[in-house]
Amino acid sequence: MKIFDEIESEVRSYARSFPRMFNRAKDEFIYDEEGNAYLDFLAGAGSLNYGHNNDLFKEKLLEYINNDGITQGLDLHTRAKGEFLESFNNNILKPRDLDYIVMFTGPTGTNAVEAALKTARKYTGRENIVSFTNGWHGQTLGSLAITGNGHHRGGAGVSLSGATRMPYDGYMGDDVDTTNYLDKVLSDSSSGVDKPAAVIVETVQGEGGINACSTTWLKSLSEVCKKHDVLLIIDDIQAGCGRTGTFFSFEEAGIYPDIVTVSKSLSGYGLPFAIVLMKPELDQWKPGEHNGTFRGNNPAFITAKAALDNYWKDDKFAKEVQAKGEYIANRVDKIVELYGEGNFNSHGRGMFRGINCVSGEIAGKITHNAFQKGLIIETSGADDHVVKFLCPLTITQENLEKGIDILEQSIKEVCAKADNIPEEKDYFEGDYSVSEEVEKMSRQS
Amino acid sequence: MKIFDEIESEVRSYARSFPRMFNRAKDEFIYDEEGNAYLDFLAGAGSLNYGHNNDLFKEKLLEYINNDGITQGLDLHTRAKGEFLESFNNNILKPRDLDYIVMFTGPTGTNAVEAALKTARKYTGRENIVSFTNGWHGQTLGSLAITGNGHHRGGAGVSLSGATRMPYDGYMGDDVDTTNYLDKVLSDSSSGVDKPAAVIVETVQGEGGINACSTTWLKSLSEVCKKHDVLLIIDDIQAGCGRTGTFFSFEEAGIYPDIVTVSKSLSGYGLPFAIVLMKPELDQWKPGEHNGTFRGNNPAFITAKAALDNYWKDDKFAKEVQAKGEYIANRVDKIVELYGEGNFNSHGRGMFRGINCVSGEIAGKITHNAFQKGLIIETSGADDHVVKFLCPLTITQENLEKGIDILEQSIKEVCAKADNIPEEKDYFEGDYSVSEEVEKMSRQS
Amino acid sequence: MKIFDEIESEVRSYARSFPRMFNRAKDEFIYDEEGNAYLDFLAGAGSLNYGHNNDLFKEKLLEYINNDGITQGLDLHTRAKGEFLESFNNNILKPRDLDYIVMFTGPTGTNAVEAALKTARKYTGRENIVSFTNGWHGQTLGSLAITGNGHHRGGAGVSLSGATRMPYDGYMGDDVDTTNYLDKVLSDSSSGVDKPAAVIVETVQGEGGINACSTTWLKSLSEVCKKHDVLLIIDDIQAGCGRTGTFFSFEEAGIYPDIVTVSKSLSGYGLPFAIVLMKPELDQWKPGEHNGTFRGNNPAFITAKAALDNYWKDDKFAKEVQAKGEYIANRVDKIVELYGEGNFNSHGRGMFRGINCVSGEIAGKITHNAFQKGLIIETSGADDHVVKFLCPLTITQENLEKGIDILEQSIKEVCAKADNIPEEKDYFEGDYSVSEEVEKMSRQS
Amino acid sequence: MKIFDEIESEVRSYARSFPRMFNRAKDEFIYDEEGNAYLDFLAGAGSLNYGHNNDLFKEKLLEYINNDGITQGLDLHTRAKGEFLESFNNNILKPRDLDYIVMFTGPTGTNAVEAALKTARKYTGRENIVSFTNGWHGQTLGSLAITGNGHHRGGAGVSLSGATRMPYDGYMGDDVDTTNYLDKVLSDSSSGVDKPAAVIVETVQGEGGINACSTTWLKSLSEVCKKHDVLLIIDDIQAGCGRTGTFFSFEEAGIYPDIVTVSKSLSGYGLPFAIVLMKPELDQWKPGEHNGTFRGNNPAFITAKAALDNYWKDDKFAKEVQAKGEYIANRVDKIVELYGEGNFNSHGRGMFRGINCVSGEIAGKITHNAFQKGLIIETSGADDHVVKFLCPLTITQENLEKGIDILEQSIKEVCAKADNIPEEKDYFEGDYSVSEEVEKMSRQS
Repeated sequence: MKIFDEIESEVRSYARSFPRMFNRAKDEFIYDEEGNAYLDFLAGAGSLNYGHNNDLFKEKLLEYINNDGITQGLDLHTRAKGEFLESFNNNILKPRDLDYIVMFTGPTGTNAVEAALKTARKYTGRENIVSFTNGWHGQTLGSLAITGNGHHRGGAGVSLSGATRMPYDGYMGDDVDTTNYLDKVLSDSSSGVDKPAAVIVETVQGEGGINACSTTWLKSLSEVCKKHDVLLIIDDIQAGCGRTGTFFSFEEAGIYPDIVTVSKSLSGYGLPFAIVLMKPELDQWKPGEHNGTFRGNNPAFITAKAALDNYWKDDKFAKEVQAKGEYIANRVDKIVELYGEGNFNSHGRGMFRGINCVSGEIAGKITHNAFQKGLIIETSGADDHVVKFLCPLTITQENLEKGIDILEQSIKEVCAKADNIPEEKDYFEGDYSVSEEVEKMSRQS
Repeated sequence: MKIFDEIESEVRSYARSFPRMFNRAKDEFIYDEEGNAYLDFLAGAGSLNYGHNNDLFKEKLLEYINNDGITQGLDLHTRAKGEFLESFNNNILKPRDLDYIVMFTGPTGTNAVEAALKTARKYTGRENIVSFTNGWHGQTLGSLAITGNGHHRGGAGVSLSGATRMPYDGYMGDDVDTTNYLDKVLSDSSSGVDKPAAVIVETVQGEGGINACSTTWLKSLSEVCKKHDVLLIIDDIQAGCGRTGTFFSFEEAGIYPDIVTVSKSLSGYGLPFAIVLMKPELDQWKPGEHNGTFRGNNPAFITAKAALDNYWKDDKFAKEVQAKGEYIANRVDKIVELYGEGNFNSHGRGMFRGINCVSGEIAGKITHNAFQKGLIIETSGADDHVVKFLCPLTITQENLEKGIDILEQSIKEVCAKADNIPEEKDYFEGDYSVSEEVEKMSRQS
Repeated sequence: MKIFDEIESEVRSYARSFPRMFNRAKDEFIYDEEGNAYLDFLAGAGSLNYGHNNDLFKEKLLEYINNDGITQGLDLHTRAKGEFLESFNNNILKPRDLDYIVMFTGPTGTNAVEAALKTARKYTGRENIVSFTNGWHGQTLGSLAITGNGHHRGGAGVSLSGATRMPYDGYMGDDVDTTNYLDKVLSDSSSGVDKPAAVIVETVQGEGGINACSTTWLKSLSEVCKKHDVLLIIDDIQAGCGRTGTFFSFEEAGIYPDIVTVSKSLSGYGLPFAIVLMKPELDQWKPGEHNGTFRGNNPAFITAKAALDNYWKDDKFAKEVQAKGEYIANRVDKIVELYGEGNFNSHGRGMFRGINCVSGEIAGKITHNAFQKGLIIETSGADDHVVKFLCPLTITQENLEKGIDILEQSIKEVCAKADNIPEEKDYFEGDYSVSEEVEKMSRQS
Repeated sequence: MKIFDEIESEVRSYARSFPRMFNRAKDEFIYDEEGNAYLDFLAGAGSLNYGHNNDLFKEKLLEYINNDGITQGLDLHTRAKGEFLESFNNNILKPRDLDYIVMFTGPTGTNAVEAALKTARKYTGRENIVSFTNGWHGQTLGSLAITGNGHHRGGAGVSLSGATRMPYDGYMGDDVDTTNYLDKVLSDSSSGVDKPAAVIVETVQGEGGINACSTTWLKSLSEVCKKHDVLLIIDDIQAGCGRTGTFFSFEEAGIYPDIVTVSKSLSGYGLPFAIVLMKPELDQWKPGEHNGTFRGNNPAFITAKAALDNYWKDDKFAKEVQAKGEYIANRVDKIVELYGEGNFNSHGRGMFRGINCVSGEIAGKITHNAFQKGLIIETSGADDHVVKFLCPLTITQENLEKGIDILEQSIKEVCAKADNIPEEKDYFEGDYSVSEEVEKMSRQS
């Protein structure tokens, strides 16, 4: 790993939490060069909902490459793109009665967000965008301006403008419906909040600490937007593609957002891919007005179609995710009750869940401990104080249980501190084994 | 192609210039569903310097996928990433005595530019960035702020700030060295130009109309930056990776820029990949301060390494590119002389060359005509008035000649207008043939 | 008045509400060319707290001009300026234990606000300024960015940045202490609210609708600022100089703001004059770093000193203002009860009070009606729905009563509408009489 | 002067160059408390074109105050305002065939500039404003964004946006007509310079170093603006009101600017007063959309009318100014030739002239030396390297000569340095004498 120390930028971060050299991955497992397996509850930061190198997509991908299918197609019409669109239309849009135009942006989430903001500003002729406390939308300047995280905002080195922050659901306590506040400032011509082009919101704030807004709040937000003729953008980059138990995270609320951003697990295989969905009347783009070299990453179209065809042709997969989500919720609630000493609490929806440990130090110790037991799991939130569950949706029930078992043990050990001897347990059998080296590392730290 | 009309955004552009359904590509050819071959002088907007689906990389890619190598690795240490870094260090940096830190950003050019700007602003504590007339750096707000194109800037729907525009080499005529003007405004505390964090420049402006700055000007620019303690960023996204005849486009000038952005052809296979190179002292990033889900697109690391190992282990490839570049320049100069009636002129460096047709209408007719003859070639420049050569660097001499022959014929026909019967010529034999349908389309339009 | 129609800009506004040609004024009266007197409850928008052409100051002013005292002194040391400073120090600062540096800015309120913001940004190195819903701070771009009024913000024609809006006291209902929300966003590094240089607040929002914050809230705001190391700026331009019953409007709360802006009635005579007060450590200005041609309006120093020497050498005047304030409050409360039908309510502090008529149309009818009876009084608030009391503090008790009598009658008439014949009453005797022309105008409109 | 040290902000600047306590002024003289007279070649930074306390206006002012004329009239119609408008229309606008609407803004120059920018942005719907290197337009954020001076820009503490800088006449050498560059960037849709609402320019840059643009350049600028449908704003705050030899500084060029800002000497008496003139079609303001408490400073209307009636009813005064301007130019040219050793040069127009000493240190020594001889004169320019002539236009020929004599002597002494014994000369007789204290101060420094 010398080369990393020598010439890779200090900006790297996950490599610090999980300081191994990885070289192979399958489904919910990732392997290091010593052959150790790790259960992956990070899952490409939500971009691997269907696990690593899912065999259902792999053959399609190999076949496509082997046949010299178009790899880089810019925004040319290609068969791969056309078939993705057909599949997306038939499996996702039509069954949900969602009438959307699909815009192919650069293949990263932030590019989709930037395109969504441009769409809204262009359509309305307004500049202001309302986003929420603890919201996270990306790292390029347009997305960063609407992102809450001060560490990242500070990285801009320049003023971030054109955005107004509003309190997210629950931010001012359970008694305050913060959509009322939004309604008031939009109704009040002297509120100082310029009429926005759009409100952008995540239904579950991932980086913000796995805060899930209620269905009621989301409906109310949608109503307030309609009342004031303001567009509603759902940033479904992390919560979408099934994470919460439905393809789109807003389905339960029964709303029809004006714009939706989708990326992360869209390709199904971890390949860069992002799109923006918009109501037809919003598609007032002139040709090429927003572009980007890699918006025609055709291999991603192939695996994306495979993911849709396999997992979303009916509601079977969604129900499985919901069931696993309930299992996780139950387990996590018990863990919180057992070890949280009244301080911890659990948040989230579907298979997107977090344990708020209040302290970033404790949460960090927990994930560090878990890694030493073979579980890759990360923290999120303003102070990295939330342990974030983000395992593949396709994880087996057995491995899901194992993963939570490890985490429970880690929490137990960390919360018990020195005066408590943690129980030993062999979490994995078969192809899974934590190497001696990892154990050594564990004892040292 | 009905699905595209139904649900794809109007923002698509190349698909309008080349309205075919493509499904296969190899080296300098791209094929539509009717089996027609097209010589590709667009080459993924510069992201396919080594052609489509280059066999030298393809096997590596198939093997990697087949073995379940990590696909999406975030910024974890992976073998694929490590080996790419080794290869980049050994084949590129060391032989050129360039001491750079490598930052993996989101895999698109604009993300690299945004990261470069952040790096410069962070390091210097200043906000202003100097960029140039007709410069092009991307579509997200940070990059768009430094981009010249008004059509795209207008798409922002919001004020773009933090940038100052300077005249590029030649912009004020041959007699004015515009670096003197830059020197003066930086020397004059009342010039109104706030001391910038950095100057960002393309050595050949691609989208701006294939304007190549002179080596003298570039050296002078570097000197002015040093004199005023301002960082110099070379945006080598389009001109880099060999396009001008050396790996980096600035090598000829003998300068050592503070920051370099690389993307487009970096992966060699058209896969999304982008990096920022910076002098070691500039790497003051805190872990995770700039991130992005897809900055660990490992398949791209595999093909990128293959490209470096195959084409850049010695100077053979560079010399071939230079030779082809001269051939193109000679042919183009003759074409300009023959048909340009004193109005056209030719610009560029290496295999990055343009014919300035002054009129966007004429340039459009030429590329349209060429497409009907089986050549994919695009325009660039403020008024789309420049026919842009961007063929794969690996093109065979025979196909290079064919491509230019087609273009010459198209120019001849367009410039000769109606009173001139164009000569017929069968440009391609063997697997190449323009279908009747294309010919029909051609006659109709 | 033809010349006004011919060449004065449409931007004029008060001249539309009170379409007379005025030529003379004394104390609480202003006279038109026909010799009609009007009781002035607008008082130069708060800049005539001591009435028009107060005889206590007039002689000093005449004498100064007559003796060729410096008129325009830039920021040179002049005797007039020195004596103003002495008086301000002795009568205002020292007795209140306020240790402040005095900065002479351009002589308008907005210039003082701009200087205050610069001071805060310079001292802290931060950009963001927190201001409040319905706050009003001026019309130049720096001040406008922190002002709530959308009508005026829209006049900028350019993005207004560097400001964050927070809900003022009571904005979210009586149950929500909005300083808690401020505390939370400042405590939360992912709130998206960049740490501000300062919080700026009016203790009574004049243009915002005569909203007076509570003493408790103001104290809490001061505590939150201290806790987060954020400067507190009191914009006392309209509420200061005695309007609320003490020289500074924040005295009752017992706080010591970091910065205070003072203007409007500072000169005592309606002459342009503005200053910024700041804690000594904040005075990190370099010579001339903020300047302005007219910051040495020496005649204003003369009358300002006279005002301080006459009215603020002890607490007699303050007590009178407080007593009149109570009288106004009592009268207004009764009026609201009698005619407001449960909809109207009354707000304010001291002699700064408003009747919220909910409807801008009704408020407008009331002030229009009152003008026809010889009372000049204006509306404020987002929808111009608040009738605003802003009479000279020096008004006689008799005239105060008359003014309120007129207003009461106007409210009665407007609220009674057509089916109610208003009682006739001769409000003024002696030199006061509404001309037939005014009555005619009244009947026509 | 203790009180100044104790509680006045460090921002004061002129008081440092001329550290005396002044208390009286008449015409071109200003007197300190010791009774010393100083010839005033600073003249209120251009706001005292008619000298201090001009007797022609003084009586009118005293009479007005004595009669309780309206002092503070907001934007109400008053007789004083109406008569000012009549006089301005009859003496200034009509004789010059200038059809302008008059907007009363806050009474400072920067407020007029802010209102002018708003007018232009509002009318065109565009944000960008083009201003020039070394331009100076004010200290509030809107004006500061278009000002060149880095010292002042830095005082903002916040990003200044919405402006593009262009090189002023002569900035790129005598051979480059910088209006061509402006024409090119406005013609080029990819120049990166967003189409501006307006170009704002001073015909003589005062703070920028007394740079006078040529009549040819100004005409060409006006043509370029028309060609591109961009408004032309002349900021005539310092160069206007006769300073260059005509009332407006642009008269010689025969252009009809879209917007003109006037302030400084407008009131004639050094009282705060500012207006914006605009072509009638630009007056699309809604009532009150831009306002300000002190835009009805009626005493200034009185003296402004007196100034217009006395000095501008015919061309006699203008011719006197032109003659004095020529005298100054001739004297200055000789001085430059005699003592400048080929380095100094002289710039300007009319009675607005500067000696560029190249070095700020030398220029500072000269003005310091001159002050000790009884002459108040300041420097300007990016490095304070230009000695700036700004004496009252009404100065007697005798005193003009005396002032220049003093300056010549100071230059001689400073340039001759220590090895040269300056000649003694009694510059003033009669009521003028430099006190022993001043001489002592002089020997010490």
